[in-house]
Amino acid sequence: MSRDLRPLFNPRSVAILGASNDPAKWGNRLALGALRGEKHRSVYLVNRNGGEILERPAYPSLSDLPEAPELVVLSVPAEGFEEAVEASLAAGAKALVGITTGLGETGADGRAREAAIVERVRAAGAVLVGPNCLGIFDAGSGLDLGWSELNGGSIALVSQSGNLALELALLAEEYGLGFSRFASLGNQADLEAGELVSGLIAHEPTRVIALYCEDFRDGRAFARAAQEAVEAGKPVILLTVGSGEVSAQAARSHTGALVSSASAVEAACRAAGMQRVRSPRELVDLAQAELARVKPRGRKVVIIGDGGGHGIVASDVASAQGLELPALSDELQGRIAPHLPDAAPTRNPVDFAGAGEQFLTIFEDVTRIILESGEVDAALVTGYFGGYSEFSDEFQAQETDVALGMARAAADTGRALVVQSMYPRSPSLVALREAGVPVYRQIEAAAWALRRLVDQVERPPRGVPELPAAAAGEPGPRGYWEARELLGAAGIAFPPAHRVGDADEARAAAAELGYPVVVKALGLLHKSDAGGVALGIEDEQVLDAALAKMATLSTEGYSVERMAPVTEGAELIAGCICDPRFGPVVLVGLGGIYAELLDDTAVALAPVDAAQAEELLRSLRGAAILAGARGRPPLEVRAAAESIATLSRLAASRPDLAEIEINPLLVTPSGALALDARALSVENGADAR
Amino acid sequence: MSRDLRPLFNPRSVAILGASNDPAKWGNRLALGALRGEKHRSVYLVNRNGGEILERPAYPSLSDLPEAPELVVLSVPAEGFEEAVEASLAAGAKALVGITTGLGETGADGRAREAAIVERVRAAGAVLVGPNCLGIFDAGSGLDLGWSELNGGSIALVSQSGNLALELALLAEEYGLGFSRFASLGNQADLEAGELVSGLIAHEPTRVIALYCEDFRDGRAFARAAQEAVEAGKPVILLTVGSGEVSAQAARSHTGALVSSASAVEAACRAAGMQRVRSPRELVDLAQAELARVKPRGRKVVIIGDGGGHGIVASDVASAQGLELPALSDELQGRIAPHLPDAAPTRNPVDFAGAGEQFLTIFEDVTRIILESGEVDAALVTGYFGGYSEFSDEFQAQETDVALGMARAAADTGRALVVQSMYPRSPSLVALREAGVPVYRQIEAAAWALRRLVDQVERPPRGVPELPAAAAGEPGPRGYWEARELLGAAGIAFPPAHRVGDADEARAAAAELGYPVVVKALGLLHKSDAGGVALGIEDEQVLDAALAKMATLSTEGYSVERMAPVTEGAELIAGCICDPRFGPVVLVGLGGIYAELLDDTAVALAPVDAAQAEELLRSLRGAAILAGARGRPPLEVRAAAESIATLSRLAASRPDLAEIEINPLLVTPSGALALDARALSVENGADAR
Repeated sequence: MSRDLRPLFNPRSVAILGASNDPAKWGNRLALGALRGEKHRSVYLVNRNGGEILERPAYPSLSDLPEAPELVVLSVPAEGFEEAVEASLAAGAKALVGITTGLGETGADGRAREAAIVERVRAAGAVLVGPNCLGIFDAGSGLDLGWSELNGGSIALVSQSGNLALELALLAEEYGLGFSRFASLGNQADLEAGELVSGLIAHEPTRVIALYCEDFRDGRAFARAAQEAVEAGKPVILLTVGSGEVSAQAARSHTGALVSSASAVEAACRAAGMQRVRSPRELVDLAQAELARVKPRGRKVVIIGDGGGHGIVASDVASAQGLELPALSDELQGRIAPHLPDAAPTRNPVDFAGAGEQFLTIFEDVTRIILESGEVDAALVTGYFGGYSEFSDEFQAQETDVALGMARAAADTGRALVVQSMYPRSPSLVALREAGVPVYRQIEAAAWALRRLVDQVERPPRGVPELPAAAAGEPGPRGYWEARELLGAAGIAFPPAHRVGDADEARAAAAELGYPVVVKALGLLHKSDAGGVALGIEDEQVLDAALAKMATLSTEGYSVERMAPVTEGAELIAGCICDPRFGPVVLVGLGGIYAELLDDTAVALAPVDAAQAEELLRSLRGAAILAGARGRPPLEVRAAAESIATLSRLAASRPDLAEIEINPLLVTPSGALALDARALSVENGADAR
Repeated sequence: MSRDLRPLFNPRSVAILGASNDPAKWGNRLALGALRGEKHRSVYLVNRNGGEILERPAYPSLSDLPEAPELVVLSVPAEGFEEAVEASLAAGAKALVGITTGLGETGADGRAREAAIVERVRAAGAVLVGPNCLGIFDAGSGLDLGWSELNGGSIALVSQSGNLALELALLAEEYGLGFSRFASLGNQADLEAGELVSGLIAHEPTRVIALYCEDFRDGRAFARAAQEAVEAGKPVILLTVGSGEVSAQAARSHTGALVSSASAVEAACRAAGMQRVRSPRELVDLAQAELARVKPRGRKVVIIGDGGGHGIVASDVASAQGLELPALSDELQGRIAPHLPDAAPTRNPVDFAGAGEQFLTIFEDVTRIILESGEVDAALVTGYFGGYSEFSDEFQAQETDVALGMARAAADTGRALVVQSMYPRSPSLVALREAGVPVYRQIEAAAWALRRLVDQVERPPRGVPELPAAAAGEPGPRGYWEARELLGAAGIAFPPAHRVGDADEARAAAAELGYPVVVKALGLLHKSDAGGVALGIEDEQVLDAALAKMATLSTEGYSVERMAPVTEGAELIAGCICDPRFGPVVLVGLGGIYAELLDDTAVALAPVDAAQAEELLRSLRGAAILAGARGRPPLEVRAAAESIATLSRLAASRPDLAEIEINPLLVTPSGALALDARALSVENGADAR
């Protein structure tokens, strides 16, 4: 999928179409930025009025330039956009940045105009960012098109919001972090987030990839690009629209985005190994952690503080994050005790009891001893360290030495070190950060970031599955019987059943199947709510009564089924939804009362195999139910997993299905049985929901 | 309980015992601080060596002073502490601050020494802070004893950690907040946290009370003081040791604290209306919110952003906090739309689509229109606002005007306003804060603080209950039968049962009770695990088999009981534990499989009445079970609540009980029945656990 993005991020020449002397116009900012890169490339300012802009001659048109502009930035009104693109391509441009607004984000007409433009761009072998974007930036190539606020650094940022990019830049600066490359996404008419991510994999200065994205366009391609980046050692951090209907609606208004469900985004993140965050703060906190020279390999952490209060608060916060704080061995405690005041706690948290002031080197000595012991995966130093530099220049020099010694201890032992300090901008801690140790202002951030690093080790990417070839299928909503037949044909087990038209046929079917039976009225959208399901029918008399009750409901006859052994097992819910961007996503959860109480589901990009489906089931908070909680026999989870895998393969091969669900999927000690099912086609999805 | 703390925080004269010229000594810092208040009071520096300290004459002893020192600060070695206290009291001191370490925190001997000293102090009508404390501070009286880092302000801080106090001071400074009073708690030998809180209720400059506390000493008195403060309109924010065993152990090491369980602290907070926080950051974030001029009366919030990305992220973060983001009415949207660019979203979030830059007044206009509509309880403005001041002095002046206009809109309408900004220290936002509007750097903090304010409105303090007079009881651990008799005598219903010694008696008992019956072997600590319980015995044959199986287990005979209708109801767990500081605490939760899955309990200080007990049950996450989930009849929750209230009264009247528990307490559609019980006495608690 990757095209060459070199002309975009490191062009030999650049032209600003719509350059302006008016500081209120973006064309002014673009021109100023471009001129900052004059030593790297030719910069041409173009304005139809000619004259002088920023003390340079302004060219009336692209055809007047002395050479082909490799990159053209288009800051022109919407009505002139097509013409400007044509002129750019005619002048030989290989990359375009479309600042222009009023195109695809305004509706179907605008999208059609964009599509036509993109066709022309691609035919010319060029690439286009935007339109409706705010520019790009590349630190290494000295390319600054509208983003001079960005400091250089190791983070590549791809953003669908200018203000959020600015906020991220300000937050990153607090940590002394900066950006290797930035792209404002805009409407992604040509270049999408995925292709921009792909282009970063080989971009040497980029060590972490961060995104704010509302619309993932080709979501599978995006996820695959992210997976490749992660596998290449470049963590991908994603800030996106959350689960709330409110935010989804807002995103649709904001950029006309096709918003993916929270489930689909979660599934894509787990597949690709992307790290999802909820706020700019989390993005920058995690980016700092991802840049650590040594990352933790497990969740065992020692807390080291120079005062008891900090150690205690840090212990609580770290425990709440799910980090483990093992008691250090007696032997290890015996080795650190001589460095500390009498009676200073050495168990974990280790508390210097204020001794740091007299013997600053104990920070280095104790940290090294503990990391060398191998008893923990990481040390979290909390509280005052960094503040000693406030005392005097001598203290500052000493504290910096100690800080660098701590960083060396981490590097030598391969055990992680994270610091929380009341004085995070102290010169000693600036040095510590530069040595690859994350330093946070807030203990929550330090513990959270550490936990996120551990999660990555414990939960490697599942991989983005390939979609099978699409199979044909009949359109239209499917009732229970049709869904049952579809799933049954794919190999999913249902209780034996007969479709019958009247009471006589029902009695015959029940006699053949053997009582107890279940009767379901067919042709109802919500048959349970409507009274169209009768369970545990023990004999013909009860059957007649049940049929009599349903007589007014049934439009398409009944299904008479052998009653399943429901008390022996647990009910699951298994379904697939087709996300507009990420395609089919499988969801599993506990059913029945647990679904109401636990709100507990697990998701994955479809299709999944049985092993992955079982992993999903085992990851549920209520998984104890499946393992045979409270003395009950363990359930045949593997059989349920096979059914879920089959369901997911079916859904993945049928893009015409908007949703398909088995609810409940009964899992017993001996197997799994689908007890109800439904399916919706894409074109009918909205109506039938 | 309140004694006069005026001599402590606003003394007419102060003496520093152990004043020093050595900058490394605390006695130097104390002396420097005290001298800063010389215009408010006489300051005497005392050092046995006499001479000059800080260019003042040093008095060799307290008896040499020209007047009685109303407050004496004791920074002397532990071995001389008693003598120094005696000398202070002899010199007429009415308040003492004990810096000295090496007393109560070292063990039983030290605590005995402290107790004797406190007796002397109280007999002399004086008060003592510490020992093992770091000093005190009072902004209004110009009293600075060791805490010159603190800016003046409205927050009173009581802390058991010096470094955490310092961290809080640094964080508060970022928000332009400061402190009205500070007390380092130390060992709380005389003055405890509760009495210091009491003393703040009438302290006019104090508007918010913040505590870091590891040991609550007289926990009920502390909670009552906090409740009084809250009722007097002074919110109390508590940072304390959390639930983790790690942090509890660390706190015991740190200050020899008797650490309360997380349940007891939670119960005390709910009773008193204290706000528990988990970190210094949360404490300061909430303090800022508590100082808001207008607080929200409900959880309906409008998000207002000047760029779409910020509005979307804020919506997600606010929704995740449980705030409601209602769609604004069409009528209201119609009134704000003319202020905004075409197609700018007005539903909620409201997105200015970058128009703020051209028309800064829309921030004020739109905020006012929405707040005046009454459709929301609060507005949360997010993103760039504050940054316009960066453009020019003119923009700064205009943005400040607009900010103050927004503050007026909140004040005029009585609807809350909270701001999150990328530029939180912008002059316009400093002005906004001064006008009583909280301004945060992080959207998480803004949404979290807003939600905490709403929680306070929705969950008013329950009140700290009085303990009934203690009743006598026999010591020793109680088996099931004894606990059953104790609870039964208090009025709790159990199934009819007979205690029997052998199989013949068991058969006779079962015949009388009627099958099915339950048999329990008595005298076992964990009778279920040991196989000492047989349920659902249908006839004499099954009974004989069950008794034969238990023959080797029983040491004290059996209980034969009528089988309860377990399938008709749900199992609860109800218990009381006696916290070393807060006394009896009642805990309720769902039992059985739900206990394993949901980890869902509610707690309160005991005793509770039936209405409070019912509120606890209804607050459980799994409360749907009780209301008749999935078509089952509703359960008789009131009967269960009555049982819990009875249990709590019993526990509250019996301080000899460390724990008493009914598990399960069966609640059915017709009533509640205790099916098992146990109790532990205080002196046996540790062994029997």
